Amino acid sequence: MDYNTLDNASLEEIETHAAERYEGISRRNLQLDMTRGKPGSEQLDLSDGILGIVGTGDCTGQGGDYRNYGILTGIPEAKDFFATYMEVEPENIIVGGNSSLTMMYDAIVGALLFGVPGGAGPWKDLGTIKFLCPVPGYDRHFAICERLGIEMIPVDMNDDGPDMDVVEKLVAADDAIKGVWCVPKYSNPTGIVYCDAVVERLAGMKAAAADFRIIWDNAYAYHHLGSGPASVQNILKACEAAGTSDRALMFGSTSKVTHAGAGVAMMAASANNIADATKKQFYSSIGPDKINQLRHVRFFENRDGLLSHMDKHAEIIAPKFAAVDQALESHLAGKEIATWTRPDGGYFVSVDLVEGCASEVVRLAGEAGVKLTPAGATYPLGDDPKDRNLRIAPTMPSVEEVKLAMEVFCVCVELATAKKLRG
Amino acid sequence: MDYNTLDNASLEEIETHAAERYEGISRRNLQLDMTRGKPGSEQLDLSDGILGIVGTGDCTGQGGDYRNYGILTGIPEAKDFFATYMEVEPENIIVGGNSSLTMMYDAIVGALLFGVPGGAGPWKDLGTIKFLCPVPGYDRHFAICERLGIEMIPVDMNDDGPDMDVVEKLVAADDAIKGVWCVPKYSNPTGIVYCDAVVERLAGMKAAAADFRIIWDNAYAYHHLGSGPASVQNILKACEAAGTSDRALMFGSTSKVTHAGAGVAMMAASANNIADATKKQFYSSIGPDKINQLRHVRFFENRDGLLSHMDKHAEIIAPKFAAVDQALESHLAGKEIATWTRPDGGYFVSVDLVEGCASEVVRLAGEAGVKLTPAGATYPLGDDPKDRNLRIAPTMPSVEEVKLAMEVFCVCVELATAKKLRG
Repeated sequence: MDYNTLDNASLEEIETHAAERYEGISRRNLQLDMTRGKPGSEQLDLSDGILGIVGTGDCTGQGGDYRNYGILTGIPEAKDFFATYMEVEPENIIVGGNSSLTMMYDAIVGALLFGVPGGAGPWKDLGTIKFLCPVPGYDRHFAICERLGIEMIPVDMNDDGPDMDVVEKLVAADDAIKGVWCVPKYSNPTGIVYCDAVVERLAGMKAAAADFRIIWDNAYAYHHLGSGPASVQNILKACEAAGTSDRALMFGSTSKVTHAGAGVAMMAASANNIADATKKQFYSSIGPDKINQLRHVRFFENRDGLLSHMDKHAEIIAPKFAAVDQALESHLAGKEIATWTRPDGGYFVSVDLVEGCASEVVRLAGEAGVKLTPAGATYPLGDDPKDRNLRIAPTMPSVEEVKLAMEVFCVCVELATAKKLRG
Repeated sequence: MDYNTLDNASLEEIETHAAERYEGISRRNLQLDMTRGKPGSEQLDLSDGILGIVGTGDCTGQGGDYRNYGILTGIPEAKDFFATYMEVEPENIIVGGNSSLTMMYDAIVGALLFGVPGGAGPWKDLGTIKFLCPVPGYDRHFAICERLGIEMIPVDMNDDGPDMDVVEKLVAADDAIKGVWCVPKYSNPTGIVYCDAVVERLAGMKAAAADFRIIWDNAYAYHHLGSGPASVQNILKACEAAGTSDRALMFGSTSKVTHAGAGVAMMAASANNIADATKKQFYSSIGPDKINQLRHVRFFENRDGLLSHMDKHAEIIAPKFAAVDQALESHLAGKEIATWTRPDGGYFVSVDLVEGCASEVVRLAGEAGVKLTPAGATYPLGDDPKDRNLRIAPTMPSVEEVKLAMEVFCVCVELATAKKLRG
């Protein structure tokens, strides 16, 4: 029954019915949080073996005594391991501290203050700087731009990556456009995976800015939901092949692999970009936490160790994603009031509602004890012009909690949409 | 025998004799490194107990599960512990990642891009920015200024802190002077300790810039050489008392307490400054490595644990400093060609030679297999106008190696100085 075709009387009936269920749910005093893509404790338990893996008398490696200062760009063992992780060569990687967000922020601040290889100097001296922002996208990417005064141009996200016709046109025409945010695998929040053609077009397109950069945040490189990690063409190699080697800056981390916050982050790029980043880093660091890097290398041993570890993550979180889909399917299917993603990996389900309903759903759910990511969070400046996209993060609560939360969510969608359609 | 009073023939004799000894030493194929203030491996061993102290099922605390994201400014237990360490209240501290250098760099970059409380906006928009640099000082402080385009004004260091007559005059007169670098305890490289009057004058002096900042790098807060940590008046409290609460930014770290690189860094400041720094940090971080913070709290338990730990450091490194002093005393005393410090803590001995001799000593020692910190390193832009100051870092080599290295050093001083005085 397509709600969009119903008359007001029928919608009123639906609304009344939904309101009754909402009242009942509200009395349950729920306290559920579906806001952020945090691993659940069962996932964190998977990595507890990392805690004691480096002990007394056991802190040396190819680079010497890792308890001391030095080794600015990461220990050799970690470079080897994470080069495999990022599918690059060890000389193309910097293994850093605990946060890829910090590395991305620092990369852009560095570009503003000092410029990047191939550019005409510090971006701060060039007037307005713009970044393309595929939407819906990751709020923390957009927050960096907002904070640094970088103008954001939203570009629609298709099922296989950003709308490349638009991206190509914009990037070719405007040398103020210095970058594009990309989460190439299991994109935040849509879960889409960039297809080969998109990767190749990003690498090969004409850019008005000689120092245009693709910020390739491969946050979910191995974070599948049971079908094994998807394969995405390597942007660094694609850029090399296209003669745009310095265009891509790849980022990754183990935040959702081992312990969030106590993980290891990395950046991979061309030799030029690595030399530039190393020089920039010299002024602010005497080196990363090398012991924690060693813990990671020891814990995984090799790529197979990592892969089987990520299979265990999938076993834990796949049922949570299934519960989300099941609830949406059983409560909302056929009503033409919501579409949603069924990702093969990543940390989110993206839901599109009838225009103008997203904020109201967040408000209603919040008052019924279910915290959702604010409407608009997936858009630059928190502004979803159609007020319709919501991001659901099911990894942190238990399966039972996800089921409860989704029941609330679906009631709120029915209630808000019926009211809206009734006009 | 004062070399300055000798005639050329006597100097030539000294030079010849020194050259002979230098030749002999050069044939030993030494490979010694006295360049950087790194802890030795025996010191690092003291903290190996920290490695396994947080294990499976053991990562929760007042702030929840420390294996997950969040808690931007440090776990409550670490705030409590390091507030005691820094002699401030827990609400006046941010406990961060592994490097106070990074925190200082970020604080200054943040001031350039966004300004600081009490200021008239981002420093980058205010034309020339200047910092006072007590000399000799820490090369990494000066490198930050150089990198960020901040003009450095050297100010002489006295035995009890920077020459405050000069500091007061400059800071009162020029609103482009936005900061001063201070290592208040066991200063790098002179080892001097700021007296109360200096601290009070820094806190109370009139500053033309409303957003003037004292960068208070308390890197050696507990790093004594046997006599227990010296006491320095608390700059934050002194500023509060003087009505300049927002003037001081204090920094510290456990880099030379536990494992360099795998330690914990912190910043302490007024509520205004902490709120400002927290806001700035939000854009680049989802939180520090909380497990490593927990390790530190568990390892020390309390201030007494820290103090007895630092006593053990002193036991290990005091003989190395004694070896430096002994060599200088036995080879150079009475010749009026060198003065040097006898610090009660910190990581360095500062040596002043006859003008124009420092670079030559570094060159000679290097060719004889003893690496010294480059001459000029203790001055802004690496430029010691009198070419006479050298920094000796004796902690990393063994006592025997320090003795060997200092023998070489003293021969090189004799050789270079005799040649220089002969003219």
